[in-house]
This record gives sequence, C-alpha cells and structure tokens, in this order.
Amino acid sequence: MNSSSDKGLFHLALDCMGGDYAPYEIVKGGIEALKIFPDLYLYLVGKEEDIEKIIAPYKKELEGRYEIVPADEIIAMDEPPLKVLRKKNSSLYKAAELVKEKKADALVSAGNTGAVLTVGKFVVGAIEELERPSIAVAFPTTNGKPTILLDVGANVDVKPKHLLQFAIIGHTYAEEILNIKNPKIGILSIGEEEGKGNELVKEAYPLLKASKLNFKGNAEGRDIFTGEFDVIVCDGFVGNIVLKASESLGISIIEMLKKEVKRSLLARIGAFLMRGVLNRLKKKADFAEYGGTPLLGAKAPIIVTHGKANYKAIVNAIRSSRQFYIHHFNQVLSKNLKKFLNGTNL
Amino acid sequence: MNSSSDKGLFHLALDCMGGDYAPYEIVKGGIEALKIFPDLYLYLVGKEEDIEKIIAPYKKELEGRYEIVPADEIIAMDEPPLKVLRKKNSSLYKAAELVKEKKADALVSAGNTGAVLTVGKFVVGAIEELERPSIAVAFPTTNGKPTILLDVGANVDVKPKHLLQFAIIGHTYAEEILNIKNPKIGILSIGEEEGKGNELVKEAYPLLKASKLNFKGNAEGRDIFTGEFDVIVCDGFVGNIVLKASESLGISIIEMLKKEVKRSLLARIGAFLMRGVLNRLKKKADFAEYGGTPLLGAKAPIIVTHGKANYKAIVNAIRSSRQFYIHHFNQVLSKNLKKFLNGTNL
Repeated sequence: MNSSSDKGLFHLALDCMGGDYAPYEIVKGGIEALKIFPDLYLYLVGKEEDIEKIIAPYKKELEGRYEIVPADEIIAMDEPPLKVLRKKNSSLYKAAELVKEKKADALVSAGNTGAVLTVGKFVVGAIEELERPSIAVAFPTTNGKPTILLDVGANVDVKPKHLLQFAIIGHTYAEEILNIKNPKIGILSIGEEEGKGNELVKEAYPLLKASKLNFKGNAEGRDIFTGEFDVIVCDGFVGNIVLKASESLGISIIEMLKKEVKRSLLARIGAFLMRGVLNRLKKKADFAEYGGTPLLGAKAPIIVTHGKANYKAIVNAIRSSRQFYIHHFNQVLSKNLKKFLNGTNL
Repeated sequence: MNSSSDKGLFHLALDCMGGDYAPYEIVKGGIEALKIFPDLYLYLVGKEEDIEKIIAPYKKELEGRYEIVPADEIIAMDEPPLKVLRKKNSSLYKAAELVKEKKADALVSAGNTGAVLTVGKFVVGAIEELERPSIAVAFPTTNGKPTILLDVGANVDVKPKHLLQFAIIGHTYAEEILNIKNPKIGILSIGEEEGKGNELVKEAYPLLKASKLNFKGNAEGRDIFTGEFDVIVCDGFVGNIVLKASESLGISIIEMLKKEVKRSLLARIGAFLMRGVLNRLKKKADFAEYGGTPLLGAKAPIIVTHGKANYKAIVNAIRSSRQFYIHHFNQVLSKNLKKFLNGTNL
C-alpha cells in the first residue's frame, strides 16, 4: 500500500458500494477523476470482483494509480446508521479505517448519510479542538455568492457553545475553500434583533458577539437566499429541515413549471427556447448535489454525496475533497479554533 | 353601532392603518369587498379624515354598510410588538377591542405581525380549551392539495402538549376550511422513524399517536411540498424559519430565472411566450400572500396579511376571514379540542 506521506500525492478512499448506482457509477467517477487529477491516488473500497470488472478497460492506463481494497459487506441506504460500527467489513467502514490509519487523506461516499456521519464521528473522529463535526451546505443566493448553512443534520440537540464552534468551522470553510475573506456570520433565528429567538439562540448570541468573528447578529430564514450573510449557523434539527424543505421546494417549483407549460402550445415553445436556462436553474436548485456535502471538523475531509449520485457527482465530490486537502483545511481549522476560542475551550 | 348579533351579517373590523400601503390600499380593499359580499358590514378603524377621503366617492352606494371607528395612533411595522398593548388608541388595538366586545366577528390587518399576534393573544384571547393560538400557512404542493404547516411563528418555545393542540387546530382547519376529510397529520422532524428528532418531537410523538387524530408519524422537510401530509406541526421557531426560507427561495428562483433569461434573445422570447405561466408560478410561490395568514384559536378569526398587501390582498383576507366565520370554525375547534383531548386537558 502507498502511504499518504508520498510526496505530492492526494490519497482518497472511495466507498464504491454506497449509493443507488453503486458500484458502477462510483467506480466510473473514480476513473474519470484519475484522468483529471494527476496527483490523485485512489483506494477503491468494495467488492473486488465488481470493481475489477468496471476498471478492466482502463487497467493499463491507470496502472499504479489505484488499488482495490476488498470489502464484502454493504451498508444499505435505509439501514440504521449506528449499524455500520458493527459492519467492520463494509466498504464504508474500511474506507474510514484507511483514513484513520492515515493511508488516505480523505473519504468520499454516496452511501447512507447517517452511516457516513457515524464513521466520521466514531472511526475517523473529530479534530482535537472540536467536540462535534458538522455538515455544511453552500446555498446559491441571488447576489451570486454562496451562503454556507451549518449544521444541517450532524447534531440534533446542541448547546450554545456548539453554535460558536460551527461558526468557526463555517468561517474557515468560507475563507479557505470559497475564498470569502472575513465572512459575515449570523445565527439563524426569527427576528433580527438581539433577544429574538429560542433559548439556544439567545444563549449563543453573546458568545458569538464576544468572539473575534465578523458576527452580524441574527439571520432570518429569508437571509439564507439573499447573500446578506456568508455563514449562518443553526442546530442540526432546524438546518436539516430547512435543507430538505428547500431542496423539495426547488424541485416542486420546476415540476409546477413543467405542468403549467404542458397546458399551452405557446408556453411549450417558450419552454423549448428557454431550455438552457431551465436546465441551469434545475442544477442550481439541487443544492447538495454539486460537489457533495462536506462533514467538517473530522480529522480528514469527508464528503457525502446524494444517494442518486452519478459519475459526474462523484468526480465533483472528489474535486471538492481535494480542495479541502490542498488548502490544508483541517490545519487552518485547528488554528482558527485556538484563535477564536481564545483558549477558553468552550 | 351595529351589533354582531344582527341576523345574517358578517361584521369585520378592518385595521386601516397597518401595512406599507395604508390607509389607501386597505380602505380600497374594504370597499371592493363590500361590493363582492352583500352580507359584509365593515368597521373601518383608523384616522377618520383619511378614511373619509378615500371612501367619499362611494359614500352613497355603501351607505349603512360600514362605519368609521376613529383611532389616531399607528403601530409602525418595526415597533416592538408588545408596545401595542400600551397604544390603546391605535387602529389595531381598537379593532381588537371591537372583536373582544363582540361587535365584530373577525379582524383583518396588514400591520406589524407581532403586534397582531399580541392583540390576538392578550386582547381577543384564546378560546377556552386552548393555551396558545397558532399561525398556520397552507403551502401549495406538487399533488395540488395544500399542506398546512403550523405553528409558523406565534410560539417559539413550546411543550409537547402544544404540538398536540396545534395538530387539532390544523385538523379543524383542514376539515372545515380546506375541505380535506380526516386529514393526515405529521410532526416535522429529521427522519421518518419514531424516535428520530429532537427532544420536543420525541416527547410529542406518543401524544399524537395516542390521540384519535389520523396521525401518520414524522414528516421530513421535503414533505412540506409533496402533499404526503395534510397537516404538519412544529414549534414556531422552526416553522417561521421554514416559511421565511421558502418564501425567499421561491422569490430568488424567479429572480435567477429573470437574470438568466436576459442573457439570451431566444430565452427572452421564450420567457415572453411563457409569461402567463411565470406569473402564475410567482403567485404560487408567494405563500403567505394569498388570503393572508390566519391566527387560529383566538376567540374570533384574525387574519394578518403581508405588510405589502394591496387592495386585492385585503379582499382575499376578508374573503378568508368570512370563510372561518361562515364555517363556525371556532365552535368546531372547541368541539374538536374536547373530543381529541378527551377531557385530559393536556
């Protein structure tokens, strides 16, 4: 096995058995990524025979750039997430072990999100300064800049100090990956003024205010899509509901559009002329699809994509995980946690 | 003054000074509504001189169908909601008093939502069996039937028993107003299975399960727009954030569409041919606009519209409040609370 200390190589553990279109689309995504990124080295984790078959036509071309790590078990999309900890022969668990052992620098999976979170928390583990890794989503906004929302599902019941930690994670994501300097941070609430919100928000507000982050106060639901804030923090319960509702609304608006269009010939012609626009719109509405969703604060970048990921989505997820690696995201995050928590170890 | 016991008349208190386009659009909406609904009697509450001027051209035609109730103070859109309780000469407070004294059967305002809530809770009051009135929004869904989400902002920190009360309110709204029999009820959470969610959801689940409501378990964020559930309950913090995020996303998708369209001549022609469809879509995405948002469980129907309400929105809000009155919503709600709470007075 190659070791992740090989100079200049980015070693990625790819869970080839997770997702609705595994293993074919996943392995195909890995093959495409190898062609695009010369510094990529892949651990293809899953059923050896299946993977061998898919990669056979490219074997010569890609020699020395990957290895297959056999794993016979599969985590089903609807399996209880914690079960993965007992399925140590599953592709996901084995991929996480490669990261834990520092053979791989990052992990990509299209599998059961809860199970990916579970291995992220319990096999890979959070970086030292952090209690809880967090899932972030970058929403497109009307002003062109994305707004990062976190946590969107890793942590259901959280304490005020965790919102501060999420804010530092989001700050680091915005600065290092999205190139937004001194990002504007908000807490998701139901009114702009300090003092508006539930108990969690009211207690977290002074912590963020006292920090050296560029804290701009409460953000409302509408601010997620206006670009007024660069980072908005919330507990994983609210965040997950907002994410799922927004995805569903985006899809349902496009479906309504299609239904309405069918009723009139002129509108049909109009839709035909607008098809490029409508396709781009659809892509934009599919928030979590592009580049996958990162679990931030684990000891190595972990990206989970939609279960319906095709090979292109896998390439994007690999591209995204490579960004985190290249920008030394975790090292900077550690530094930022020390800096902004100011040794208080909140 | 007419009394609300006048046979067959629906007496409405209209806050003429609330909203961005008050008093002109509000009074104009009232005038239009008087023309449409022969059983409507209006209390036009606000600055006498202003209202007189607007209604002057219709004075003869509408004689005996309205009276002006003078109120000199105004509640600004950004005033702290509780302040209304000290502004007893404000149009909103006076309108609420008319309802409290049973002179008016319902109240419509385009003013400060928090202030409307405040008079609803503290001047009009909740019906006897209920602890907390709740704001509901009916979202359009892909299957054509609306899904009612409540609470969307009246109650921030709630107890499990309140979610049960919200479910009974939503059930009554669905059956009586939206004509959905035996509506399917869900709790908003982050996973379908029982046991998924935050503490509030986990404790409320068994209460709803034990009730005689048609409880279908947890609903996820995406279910708000699929029509899978007829009623979804949540605390007012989550509900308000989801509502505001959804409104903002709807608007921002349409803005993105416009921006994209400008880039290409063909797309511009397409958009022109599709303009009917796009306008209908825009209307659908403006969830809270159509018919206003009802505060349910107050002793009389109270409808609050967007601050930007024009006269058409006011007509719709009056139409909506009349529906609640005609269907004896409050009497049925009282009965349902007794029936479903089963005397437990949870």
